[in-house]
Amino acid sequence: MRESISLVTLGVVDFARSKAFYESLGWNARTEEQETAFYQANGVVLVLWSRAKLADDSGIADDGARWGGITLAHNVASRDEVQGVIDLARAHGAEVSREPADTFYGGYAGVFRDLDGHAWEVAYNPGFALGEDGSIELPAADA
Amino acid sequence: MRESISLVTLGVVDFARSKAFYESLGWNARTEEQETAFYQANGVVLVLWSRAKLADDSGIADDGARWGGITLAHNVASRDEVQGVIDLARAHGAEVSREPADTFYGGYAGVFRDLDGHAWEVAYNPGFALGEDGSIELPAADA
Repeated sequence: MRESISLVTLGVVDFARSKAFYESLGWNARTEEQETAFYQANGVVLVLWSRAKLADDSGIADDGARWGGITLAHNVASRDEVQGVIDLARAHGAEVSREPADTFYGGYAGVFRDLDGHAWEVAYNPGFALGEDGSIELPAADA
Repeated sequence: MRESISLVTLGVVDFARSKAFYESLGWNARTEEQETAFYQANGVVLVLWSRAKLADDSGIADDGARWGGITLAHNVASRDEVQGVIDLARAHGAEVSREPADTFYGGYAGVFRDLDGHAWEVAYNPGFALGEDGSIELPAADA
């Protein structure tokens, strides 16, 4: 298995509502088919799709849980950007589950949950090399 | 908010067990600190971290659910590769929640769930332009 993640699909209860939410944050669907929205991110593609269909497609009996142990991170280049994204998400209905604050690693981060409860950490981490497209390049493996 | 996903963190119950599982599939941690493993994927970084710590760090009251509505996809270049990855995951203890089969879009895909229940679709989709690093480049937006 090559080390890659091609798509991250977020199951949503109300497709139109979720699409409007992500549009408010600055995400613009590159393609949309049958109530499935595809967003081009940094190599990885974000997808919004009916949660019921995603569960069925994944062969999973869905119990409706809002968090299954996955948190996405959106890294930015400054403390101000962290605050800006968190405030923007809140203004459009997201719950801020962790207010932005200094982190133990010398950065600054907060967490918002989208309208379906999917968790996004918004972080400034001076220890990560952040590309212009939001990709992170880790340092080479320890010798 | 720029359209980017910098990290995908999977909360795990038993760090050593999960790290061994992902190593068996071919993932090699580039850095590891305090029972946190960082894997360099295609721009996006995959992270394994204690689920309890991730919940706390995300400001989330964890109810232990195994699926919260997110499915990751790992796209490959052929049907044979789909079968190979699914079989490899199964051999190392993953549950195959959807056996590989032809898809409505002319591809071939199956889904496995890792030891914590995180869902990975393994897909061959001839309609997506797949880069050598596993990144997908969507067609330009509809005119």
